[in-house]
Amino acid sequence: MEGQSRSDGVVRVPANARERFYDSRGYGRPAGDALDLAPVEAAHLLYRDDLEAVDGRGFRDYLSVVDGLAVRFLVYKDLRDRGFYCSPVREGWTDSPDDGADFLVYPRGKGPWDDVIEHRVHVVGERATVPAARLAGGVLAVVDEESEITYLDTARPTVDGATEADLPGGVDATLLGDRVVAWDPPAALYERAFYGQPLDRDDDAVQLSLVEAAYLAGAGVLDVRTPDGDRGGREAVVVRGREAEGDRFDRRLAVYTSLRDRGVVPKTGFKFGADFRTYAEVDSVEELGHSELLVRVLPAGHRFAMRDLALDVRLAHGVRKRMVFALADDGTESGIDWLAVERLTP
Amino acid sequence: MEGQSRSDGVVRVPANARERFYDSRGYGRPAGDALDLAPVEAAHLLYRDDLEAVDGRGFRDYLSVVDGLAVRFLVYKDLRDRGFYCSPVREGWTDSPDDGADFLVYPRGKGPWDDVIEHRVHVVGERATVPAARLAGGVLAVVDEESEITYLDTARPTVDGATEADLPGGVDATLLGDRVVAWDPPAALYERAFYGQPLDRDDDAVQLSLVEAAYLAGAGVLDVRTPDGDRGGREAVVVRGREAEGDRFDRRLAVYTSLRDRGVVPKTGFKFGADFRTYAEVDSVEELGHSELLVRVLPAGHRFAMRDLALDVRLAHGVRKRMVFALADDGTESGIDWLAVERLTP
Repeated sequence: MEGQSRSDGVVRVPANARERFYDSRGYGRPAGDALDLAPVEAAHLLYRDDLEAVDGRGFRDYLSVVDGLAVRFLVYKDLRDRGFYCSPVREGWTDSPDDGADFLVYPRGKGPWDDVIEHRVHVVGERATVPAARLAGGVLAVVDEESEITYLDTARPTVDGATEADLPGGVDATLLGDRVVAWDPPAALYERAFYGQPLDRDDDAVQLSLVEAAYLAGAGVLDVRTPDGDRGGREAVVVRGREAEGDRFDRRLAVYTSLRDRGVVPKTGFKFGADFRTYAEVDSVEELGHSELLVRVLPAGHRFAMRDLALDVRLAHGVRKRMVFALADDGTESGIDWLAVERLTP
Repeated sequence: MEGQSRSDGVVRVPANARERFYDSRGYGRPAGDALDLAPVEAAHLLYRDDLEAVDGRGFRDYLSVVDGLAVRFLVYKDLRDRGFYCSPVREGWTDSPDDGADFLVYPRGKGPWDDVIEHRVHVVGERATVPAARLAGGVLAVVDEESEITYLDTARPTVDGATEADLPGGVDATLLGDRVVAWDPPAALYERAFYGQPLDRDDDAVQLSLVEAAYLAGAGVLDVRTPDGDRGGREAVVVRGREAEGDRFDRRLAVYTSLRDRGVVPKTGFKFGADFRTYAEVDSVEELGHSELLVRVLPAGHRFAMRDLALDVRLAHGVRKRMVFALADDGTESGIDWLAVERLTP
């Protein structure tokens, strides 16, 4: 059985191709008794020797002449090998949002004649960058330079917690370089609400990060002074933060604020290369549980490099946390989009 | 007991300070019976109430008025708390290379009167970037925004292996997009020498990355053609690599070549966010051991952001590999500097 390409790349296979390839195995789009195949489907049928030729070409030659087909073929083949039926997304073939997905993958045992979609798969090479806006809800199939495929599932997570703490106001604190020290704060500041870090086991002094201090100063808990004794307050902390990190400080403070306002406790994620690790419910530092999320703060227009994404996701998996990106557009809490990414084995 | 600052910041403590603080506890630099202290030592003695004041100031005020002292104090205190004696590096105080180290740390039980140094410690804030050239051989004490300290030990590793394989020449291969396929290579190409990745278990075809293909074409093993059948050879692969990655391809190819020439097998490190994972000795793919190194390729002038470094080191640790950076200056194998970084608990 042979196919012929049309000018749009679709391969028409005549006669009873529909029965043979669509009805029983979910390839292509019926055209009467004939069948239209996307190039990647034609390549797969050539590879399996179910088709003899397309435009007179065998598998190797066909794969060579269609631009960019090799990478999509690898993913399509892998999904088929795993027992999934999948349809290439082509204009007019599938009734679906224009999210740039390459394949619709049906649940095992289902196919294009059913009405259920398991995954919307985007195929990307490892050298590609993908804008954050493209990611939410789909699956990335990243083909690395050695043609191994990593599947990354993306979602809009619900980020909330149940941490509550009553703190007094007007606690004295000093801005010291790029951190803040509260010399004699109430014990609850650290022990209950998990702000800062004691300078020493035997010492009351608590060191706070600039984001912690700016948040607490804004909430009236801290009364921040500069070393000269000036009442700088929140503004002095924010100015120092911007000196240290530029715009990034505003984004991080917006994300920190949003997390605290949701009852989630963010602490530094430095050891994991992230901005924050988070605890959904803190009653006391003594009974601290496992932190659930790693949060990386990024500007809203960020384009993910696949290698960086793979690194973050792999690390988070290794320490049993969920990798969440907070895309903060203008430094306000309302402008934050949350994106969770995790490894998927389809 | 009180101290007085000189214009260079050194704090002179008179009378029998030498006996009390140097002879028995390793602080400062003797000046007859008196003692000269670096500001960080003075701060530590103030913190411990061993000194009452410096220039009439107590600990909190002294810490505030000396620029940048807070971060160095945190590291000095931490090292002292761990039982180490350490000397601040000051011109004329210690006879040591000008590598920008902040503290010399002596082995436990030793001090400045001995002649052995355990670590040369560089103190950096988490927001700092450090040029690669500054790193080799020292210990970084990275103070994160919440004042936790991560110690990273750096070294010039020996990178070598014992992989050997005899491969025939002139194996046909086709350049397909940003990868290369050898349709009917000798089995040894993959199974013995671990080049490429089979397209399928039941198929002879082996897919190769562009660096693998460029190396093999340069060694005369592969005969690479473009899809039109032109004999492109190594040059065609390199051109394609540069289209895909720019200069980075030349650096990666230089590192790949250097590793293979040392008997080390590099395979993609994509799943770990690195350039390569490496195997020091491959006899056959069937009996493949654990890969030992993760290699990230960087330009020679690279400045490490501490958060990125923490991420790489943490990930490598979690997968029981050694993190190695290959700093490649001009894309030649002779221009590569190797740098290993790992977490240290002093």
